[in-house]
Amino acid sequence: MNDKVISSIVRRIKSEPYARKMGIKLVELAPGRALVEMQFKEDTTNIFGMIHGGAIFSLIDEAFQASCNSHGQVAVALNVNVTYHQPPEKGGKLKAESLELHRSKRTATYEIRVTDEGDNLIASCQALAYRKKEPLPFLDEQ
Amino acid sequence: MNDKVISSIVRRIKSEPYARKMGIKLVELAPGRALVEMQFKEDTTNIFGMIHGGAIFSLIDEAFQASCNSHGQVAVALNVNVTYHQPPEKGGKLKAESLELHRSKRTATYEIRVTDEGDNLIASCQALAYRKKEPLPFLDEQ
Amino acid sequence: MNDKVISSIVRRIKSEPYARKMGIKLVELAPGRALVEMQFKEDTTNIFGMIHGGAIFSLIDEAFQASCNSHGQVAVALNVNVTYHQPPEKGGKLKAESLELHRSKRTATYEIRVTDEGDNLIASCQALAYRKKEPLPFLDEQ
Amino acid sequence: MNDKVISSIVRRIKSEPYARKMGIKLVELAPGRALVEMQFKEDTTNIFGMIHGGAIFSLIDEAFQASCNSHGQVAVALNVNVTYHQPPEKGGKLKAESLELHRSKRTATYEIRVTDEGDNLIASCQALAYRKKEPLPFLDEQ
Repeated sequence: MNDKVISSIVRRIKSEPYARKMGIKLVELAPGRALVEMQFKEDTTNIFGMIHGGAIFSLIDEAFQASCNSHGQVAVALNVNVTYHQPPEKGGKLKAESLELHRSKRTATYEIRVTDEGDNLIASCQALAYRKKEPLPFLDEQ
Repeated sequence: MNDKVISSIVRRIKSEPYARKMGIKLVELAPGRALVEMQFKEDTTNIFGMIHGGAIFSLIDEAFQASCNSHGQVAVALNVNVTYHQPPEKGGKLKAESLELHRSKRTATYEIRVTDEGDNLIASCQALAYRKKEPLPFLDEQ
Repeated sequence: MNDKVISSIVRRIKSEPYARKMGIKLVELAPGRALVEMQFKEDTTNIFGMIHGGAIFSLIDEAFQASCNSHGQVAVALNVNVTYHQPPEKGGKLKAESLELHRSKRTATYEIRVTDEGDNLIASCQALAYRKKEPLPFLDEQ
Repeated sequence: MNDKVISSIVRRIKSEPYARKMGIKLVELAPGRALVEMQFKEDTTNIFGMIHGGAIFSLIDEAFQASCNSHGQVAVALNVNVTYHQPPEKGGKLKAESLELHRSKRTATYEIRVTDEGDNLIASCQALAYRKKEPLPFLDEQ
């Protein structure tokens, strides 16, 4: 069962419109854990020419989405809290890793770290998901 | 002075790569207050076919960026806390309004609300900025 | 029904051990809204001789608890995010007001402001509650 | 120098009015890390007879205060975000451990975990401190 859930999320994220738009790739996925990455591109810069906080958050949110749905039950974001530590080195890849801190029947909490290629900690996040009763609707897609 | 700051931020956001990529428009800007909007597009959907949390956050962050820099001093995001209340009606515009709650020499706090065209409250946010000593670097651009 | 809920929470908070320990008083309570206050006392100071963040938070949390349970259904804290703006004037009363921003079947969000007697904004908070199915267990106490 | 800072914080917390009121003890302290504990007492219960969120937060905040001041420079709370996972086992001790995630010249971020005696994760926290220029004012007290 786990394998089927994981492979269906992997497939689904590969064709997700937002992940494609942002150039986000899912690198690893296991129950309660996800690793994603994004190559820096000029079209994500803000008014200061730095990477936009919204782009960093989008990477975080993709890791969160993958990890909180990895148990096969639909999970949606309730609250996300991000602290930005420092701007990343320019030009390289950013990674975000999400780890499950706690899971109960109806909610689950994740801790997400963003690092750049020099392994500098760029942002840290705590995220809370609401777990619905229904299974993922795309489990039987091919 | 205020007018010059406001008009330079307006100009800068108009040509900001990330705002263009996301289709985000700055609608109103005043010292400590910003209103932005984004038309729903299919390329911002997630694995469930709903608007991605990262796209909603990007709208929030653009309102935050505009409002916290509106005093003419460079301000950067320290912490952003978002609570998602409900998915928006599909297909319409989303708005985010940022209002300054408090400002001191080195930090400032904003409260940001996201609503859809039916005026439903989609997400609420509290955001904290660090205010650097330097003035905005693009005040004298034309 | 509303009146019974409100009066039973009022009574319950009057005898709540933690509210008594902290000297917190419930001043106003209505569905989705609560106002509480606390007189500054020397026994709430921290290592710098200022009021402790934990004491300010306790006041916030009491307002949150009262407001999120005010619909008669048991509600518990999921997430609380507090930003501290400035230390209060010393010696006076602190007030915290909680207002409901949004409520769905299973969750509800509150915005809570702490002010001192000079009406300075001391802290701002966004708080998320999980709403259980059961009614308040003390509705029929006298 | 480090030893002097650590011992002066230890001494100061031992006589801190709020820590005494709450029965909070500092168990371990090192640069960027603190462990505190609190014995459950009936006077910290809420309207449901469970430990009050404000009491759990007070424990968290004490660990945060000790760890963010452990470098000898005055640090104050800017933002604290707490997620409550489950109520603790009743009657035992609660522990909170604070670890430094990142530190720059002006800010520092901590991750704080609360566990009960059965090692259940009760609450998780991300906390952001502002680091002032001045050294701790009580370094030379005896």
